[in-house]
Amino acid sequence: MTRKAIVLLSGGVDSTTVLAIAKREGFQCYALSFDYGQRHRVELDYAAEVARILGAVEHKIVHIDLRAFGGSALTSSIPVPHGRTEKEIATGIPITYVPARNTIFLSFALAYGEVVGARDLFIGVNAIDYSGYPDCRPEFIEAFQHLANLATRSGVEENGGFRIHTPLINLTKSEIIQKGMKLGVEYARTHSCYDPSPEGKACGQCDSCLLRLKGFREAGCDDPAAYTQGKN
Amino acid sequence: MTRKAIVLLSGGVDSTTVLAIAKREGFQCYALSFDYGQRHRVELDYAAEVARILGAVEHKIVHIDLRAFGGSALTSSIPVPHGRTEKEIATGIPITYVPARNTIFLSFALAYGEVVGARDLFIGVNAIDYSGYPDCRPEFIEAFQHLANLATRSGVEENGGFRIHTPLINLTKSEIIQKGMKLGVEYARTHSCYDPSPEGKACGQCDSCLLRLKGFREAGCDDPAAYTQGKN
Repeated sequence: MTRKAIVLLSGGVDSTTVLAIAKREGFQCYALSFDYGQRHRVELDYAAEVARILGAVEHKIVHIDLRAFGGSALTSSIPVPHGRTEKEIATGIPITYVPARNTIFLSFALAYGEVVGARDLFIGVNAIDYSGYPDCRPEFIEAFQHLANLATRSGVEENGGFRIHTPLINLTKSEIIQKGMKLGVEYARTHSCYDPSPEGKACGQCDSCLLRLKGFREAGCDDPAAYTQGKN
Repeated sequence: MTRKAIVLLSGGVDSTTVLAIAKREGFQCYALSFDYGQRHRVELDYAAEVARILGAVEHKIVHIDLRAFGGSALTSSIPVPHGRTEKEIATGIPITYVPARNTIFLSFALAYGEVVGARDLFIGVNAIDYSGYPDCRPEFIEAFQHLANLATRSGVEENGGFRIHTPLINLTKSEIIQKGMKLGVEYARTHSCYDPSPEGKACGQCDSCLLRLKGFREAGCDDPAAYTQGKN
């Protein structure tokens, strides 16, 4: 019997690669995205296309209004920082951090998994070429897996069946891209920018664009996404 | 300086008592409720009134669609069980269990707390006169507190500032009611029923009504709520 997995899918490089990995590992994939009031809501169109291309059996977009709380450049009128250096990106927790976002996302993945009978939850967190978000670190993931098995009927009755998979956690961005390319991921159909133009083009200057562009550069290939500036 | 607290508020006996306790302990209370597709959505009107009566500085109702997943009598067309015995209620996890509900609720409380600067989160879980839900047990709460301090900027930068308060966890329902009465809680303004009539009257037969009625009976007082049947 094919095992089911929930895959958190933002439509960016990391989560798209994760979906391709889960598929390659033989899971029946249930993709889950969030319309959470993010400034870069265009990513949801990419997520829907990626889910279709990679053959997810279902793709749910859950509406949750994190703008009700704000507190982040992604969910309020606080501007997204542009043009930060690699050192700046690698230091501290930036203003694009969304309070408790991955805790909320994984909680919904847990509910979805419990209902459809999936015990494997995939998330594309990365603790190497990342933005310093606390909820991307291995210790956070371990704590969530522990919680998941105490929080649910399935966790209790099956004595700890939930597993959180983080196949990218120790990879650099270029390693992620190389892995995805081997799996046939079409990165032209992904979106990473925090601050896209009204037409949906990437800004090339936010932390997410800068990490993505560096990843493609180091992987020795051209980023096929459309940018308004900064690509070269 | 007054400390701030987030109080999860459903508008029932337990969470209303918790709000009164947090207030008495001197916290500035931010009440948080969820419109999650629950069959007993009328509870939100009670929550709003309770928040006002007990002087919460703010009351947010967050919309999250748990009907997108279903899997519970509270969020689907599965019928709510009526007329179960005390022994039946005390055994196993019933169909009114909502997958990952308290994990989701606490995740939002964590986000809200981080944004408004509250590090104390109150939840009215109870592991005595309760419905056997796994996410009401002390081990779940401990695991969430551990997670909260790894998941957030505040948890990391303040070296573990979040605390989950569960003042009711070891009380019987009648002890909760007695405590609330001493604090002046108006239980006529609370709602517990999972399966209310179209006019909002309690059914008197679901697990939640039965636990509530037993609590008032054992506390030696009359339940002031309106019931369609079963009160006496």
